[in-house]
Formats: sequence, structure tokens, C-alpha cells
Amino acid sequence: MFMHQGNMVRVGKKPVLSYVVACVTLFNSGKSEIMVRARGRSIPKAIETVGMLRRSFLKELVVKSVNIGSEDIKRYDGQGASVSTIEITLAKKEDAVQKVTQL
Amino acid sequence: MFMHQGNMVRVGKKPVLSYVVACVTLFNSGKSEIMVRARGRSIPKAIETVGMLRRSFLKELVVKSVNIGSEDIKRYDGQGASVSTIEITLAKKEDAVQKVTQL
Repeated sequence: MFMHQGNMVRVGKKPVLSYVVACVTLFNSGKSEIMVRARGRSIPKAIETVGMLRRSFLKELVVKSVNIGSEDIKRYDGQGASVSTIEITLAKKEDAVQKVTQL
Repeated sequence: MFMHQGNMVRVGKKPVLSYVVACVTLFNSGKSEIMVRARGRSIPKAIETVGMLRRSFLKELVVKSVNIGSEDIKRYDGQGASVSTIEITLAKKEDAVQKVTQL
């Protein structure tokens, strides 16, 4: 599935709540599906973001898919390295149900 | 799906390679499906473990499912806290193919 930048929240060094708010904003702007993406040490924070979203803000949220992988990055010293990635696709429950009934 | 302890690798503070070896040992002992599990800051290491396994040791490996969640833990000071979890289910490709053709 192609997911363009406008539907994506990249989790990094800010507090969890910043990313929760970013997700809520995307859903409120009319997106029915968003992707939460993180690399390396930020991965636990991406999972926390999804947990907090579902517990406190958007209870009808469904985790549609979780993809794990790795990315090649270049360090400051020029050496290549590999970093783990996670991509969590979230959808509102009503949309998920619609997609099932369309099959 | 019920996954009993004998099929599970819990990723913690040891180096990635320890967990890779643990997974290879399980597959070599005849298991066709194993689960790699981690909490909190060890989650990126669980994803690295799976990446290293697939790249270097068991190329026919398939990620069957990735589950994210959270667990309530009790800190040393008695306070409750919540920690993110990941559960990655891995299967040998031949088994995955068998399961598809059985449907």
C-alpha cells in the first residue's frame, strides 16, 4: 500500500504526547488511515504513541498492520550502518468495517 | 494463537547475536514457528534479531505476524507503570506455504 507523506507521523525525539496530538490532528482533518513510523531507539515510543491514542483519544482505532524492517543509514563518520524500523498503520474502526464489507 | 514457553525467545539485555542463536537453536530443534518477544527499550533489539536471522541465518524465514501492545508493570518504588511490548511470530517459509494451501 502506498502511503504518502500527508498521512504519516514520524516518531522521533519529542515527547510521546506530541505524536499523539499529531495523529489526532490527522484523523480530525479527515484522514481515515494513517501511518506511524519510527527508527531505532524511537520504536518503543511509536508503540507507546499508538497505545496512548487507543486508550485515551480514539477508542475506535484499529491497528491494521505492523511492518518491521531495516534501513541503511550513513553515520557522521561516513560508515554505513543498519537501523531497525517499524511502520504501524492505523484506521478508524468504521472504515475498517467498511473495507471488510466491500470484499 | 497460543504459544507456549518452549517456542518463545524473550529479548532483553544480552547482545543481539545471543537471541539470534536462541532462535536458530529452536528452529533446528524442530519447531516450525517461534515467537520473539520484547518489552520497552529492548524492542528495537527484537527487530534487529529478526533482521539478522533473515539476512544471515535462515533466509526462508517469514514474519507471520507482529503484535504490539502494553503491559502493566510495578516499579521498584511500588508505583505502577505501563511498558510497550512487541511479539513477532516467525515461521519457516515451507510451513507458511503449507498453511496457505491447506485453506
